Amino acid sequence: MADTKNERSIVEPSILAGFIELLPKEQMMFTRMQDTIKATFESYGFIPLDTPVLEKSEVLLAKSGGDTAKQVYRFTKGDTDMALRFDLTVPLARYVAQHYGELVFPFRRYHIGKVYRGERPQKGRFREFYQCDIDIIGNGSLGIINDAEIVSIINSTFEALQIGEFTVMINNRKLLNGFFEAYGVTDTVEVLRIVDKLDKIGEDAVRKELLELGVSAASADAILTLTSLGGDYEEILARLKEMDISNETFQIGLSELDAVCAQMKAFGIPKERFTINLKIARGLDYYTGTVYETYLKDYPELGSICSGGRYDELASNYTKQSLPGVGISIGLSRLFYQLCQAGIVSLGGRKTPSEILFIPMQGTMGYTLAKAQEFRQAGIPCETYMNEGKMGKKFGYADKLGIPFAAVIGEDEMAGNVVTLKNMTTGEQFTVGSVAEYKTFREKN
Amino acid sequence: MADTKNERSIVEPSILAGFIELLPKEQMMFTRMQDTIKATFESYGFIPLDTPVLEKSEVLLAKSGGDTAKQVYRFTKGDTDMALRFDLTVPLARYVAQHYGELVFPFRRYHIGKVYRGERPQKGRFREFYQCDIDIIGNGSLGIINDAEIVSIINSTFEALQIGEFTVMINNRKLLNGFFEAYGVTDTVEVLRIVDKLDKIGEDAVRKELLELGVSAASADAILTLTSLGGDYEEILARLKEMDISNETFQIGLSELDAVCAQMKAFGIPKERFTINLKIARGLDYYTGTVYETYLKDYPELGSICSGGRYDELASNYTKQSLPGVGISIGLSRLFYQLCQAGIVSLGGRKTPSEILFIPMQGTMGYTLAKAQEFRQAGIPCETYMNEGKMGKKFGYADKLGIPFAAVIGEDEMAGNVVTLKNMTTGEQFTVGSVAEYKTFREKN
Repeated sequence: MADTKNERSIVEPSILAGFIELLPKEQMMFTRMQDTIKATFESYGFIPLDTPVLEKSEVLLAKSGGDTAKQVYRFTKGDTDMALRFDLTVPLARYVAQHYGELVFPFRRYHIGKVYRGERPQKGRFREFYQCDIDIIGNGSLGIINDAEIVSIINSTFEALQIGEFTVMINNRKLLNGFFEAYGVTDTVEVLRIVDKLDKIGEDAVRKELLELGVSAASADAILTLTSLGGDYEEILARLKEMDISNETFQIGLSELDAVCAQMKAFGIPKERFTINLKIARGLDYYTGTVYETYLKDYPELGSICSGGRYDELASNYTKQSLPGVGISIGLSRLFYQLCQAGIVSLGGRKTPSEILFIPMQGTMGYTLAKAQEFRQAGIPCETYMNEGKMGKKFGYADKLGIPFAAVIGEDEMAGNVVTLKNMTTGEQFTVGSVAEYKTFREKN
Repeated sequence: MADTKNERSIVEPSILAGFIELLPKEQMMFTRMQDTIKATFESYGFIPLDTPVLEKSEVLLAKSGGDTAKQVYRFTKGDTDMALRFDLTVPLARYVAQHYGELVFPFRRYHIGKVYRGERPQKGRFREFYQCDIDIIGNGSLGIINDAEIVSIINSTFEALQIGEFTVMINNRKLLNGFFEAYGVTDTVEVLRIVDKLDKIGEDAVRKELLELGVSAASADAILTLTSLGGDYEEILARLKEMDISNETFQIGLSELDAVCAQMKAFGIPKERFTINLKIARGLDYYTGTVYETYLKDYPELGSICSGGRYDELASNYTKQSLPGVGISIGLSRLFYQLCQAGIVSLGGRKTPSEILFIPMQGTMGYTLAKAQEFRQAGIPCETYMNEGKMGKKFGYADKLGIPFAAVIGEDEMAGNVVTLKNMTTGEQFTVGSVAEYKTFREKN
């Protein structure tokens, strides 16, 4: 054994192409973002959910075809055909259908977990990435007011993340579909795809493409009028009501949109954070009512950083129960990458939770460990430098990890039962007799 | 499209054999345990680490053979041979070797994540399970005092988890190896395997097996004397010193054990939580010094619930750098299952983070949503029942989720700008004018 061990060659350490892992200072930031999202989701009373990353292929891929199926990590072990989940929605559908009788509805769950897609590697796209999802599932029905709460959750989440001002854009698929129906447009999907190019190619080019698709000139004008409606949500709602379109689907969509907007104030969402955008449609095959997108005000080029919507049947592949729902997803790995690239997330500062590095001198190890434990138990994360070395190396450790205070503990500190702390940024020193005194000092500095 | 959709058959929702997922009330408990472990690890200044679940097979399996390799979920996608990690230690070794130049040493990291082993399905053994690991990695060397801190971390973690009293047992591989060497025993592994049966088959049977292995009668007696040493750690250390064994490895092991024990008091570890157990050996091929096991006092039959130890070379497969370390792992999924089975973790109580369910009456939705938001922003997780239904159903929702308070908001509450709360257990009602008043009331009840 020992011989073969010595002869063993070194394997070059590396990870799979398209995968990502973070260095400590990045990981600290990422974990803090995750924690913030989790805390916000929980503040709305959502229940955590955690499903297996590996599922039966026949179950996971019940619905999927085309691109999704190609991207899935699917394999067999023994006789079992299994696959890595590619989102958190399909596992949610499977979970709710499977445990239907044991759940309390509306079922409000959050799930923060990794998903897998074997996409072509490209900048900011990862084959393993985090999604942070929240969904509310009704049993048979689900009031429209739930759609309003989702906007409030988006607002609270991005407010807490502190990554800059943002706008939640909402729209309603029924309103769009009804409008198109009223104007005799049948190929809704294609029309929306063309309309989606408005910002890129301009109104004239979009109009041209619509006509080429066979849309009448009058309908094309109407579509362009609708999708270019601007102003705050109250103005847009007023304009939509004035349109007096007699299509029933349109009217239902409008009343849903109206109901969602009506509660924005109650949820305390600042008016500038929320707007109706009649151009967004999202997941054309999937969403059936409200749809959401979220943009950073100063970085619209990042695209939507949080999206979702209302769907009629969550789990039609797994059950005959009618399970309507509404939810959103944050693609956190991609968002984090983009924030770093854009310089919005600063990677300076602490890369350990520690607030204090205790450094014992000769003969004070026991006292130092006890003091560190006292601070820790009082809620101050801290650590003790426990290895041999010169003082420079020890201070260097605090410095490199961005630990804000170093506490060198000599015989004087031990004799006086005090702790002398050095501010690693300013170099200033101060002595405290208790954790309470430290907390007071820290607040002032 | 629509036609094939209607004809689609229902796929029976289920998960893979040997995999597990929790119902909401269990998941809440599990998530709370995870959060507690994370918070404790962070209180010692450890850095979060998160590596890919999928790794290159050649890298992940550089060292492994035999049982481990058979259990691994390994497959190819395109030309790439990949595998799901089976522990968090190999990825740590790969990570430290790969990013060696970018890390600050000692590198102190925690990692809470899922690992995969295709074991034969059996009660309490899962093919996907959580490990909660903490390791301290030195660059070239790592002081023995780090081994003492690990005991402190185990103590703090299980104290915080509140799953009953426990004992951390420690031993030292050098001490054992040196002792066996001194008594001319060569087959250390086999001797330890026999000694491990002491509690099951008794001293006489163990003695018999040792003799059958070729151990001399004098050596067998010595081994049995050593492994049956009892008392608190100070007594055992005194007895070990009295033995006056001149083997150098033994003496190094003894001084390490002595050094670890010497700091227990400084870390504030109660004496009854910590003992030397000369029978434990763990991971015979891997650990080279201190080893740890942890047992629940009232449930020793659960086996060790937190184990680990000191190793000389973390990453010898990936680098020529000498990276000694010390660490522990908690197999959380299995532990949680065992705690539930033993009735230690009670599954009653809340299965949502919500403290209050707000129930709006006709015409008070806006006021209710605003009030709920006010409570939420003051740190009280809460939710609003936003769907149609009879009062009984709404109270039933609070009841089934174990939400402690329901706040029915009628016109009177709105007019008075107050919230009337009903204690869901006692039925008692009380009215509060502010969140502060609610908090005061809650503390008293």
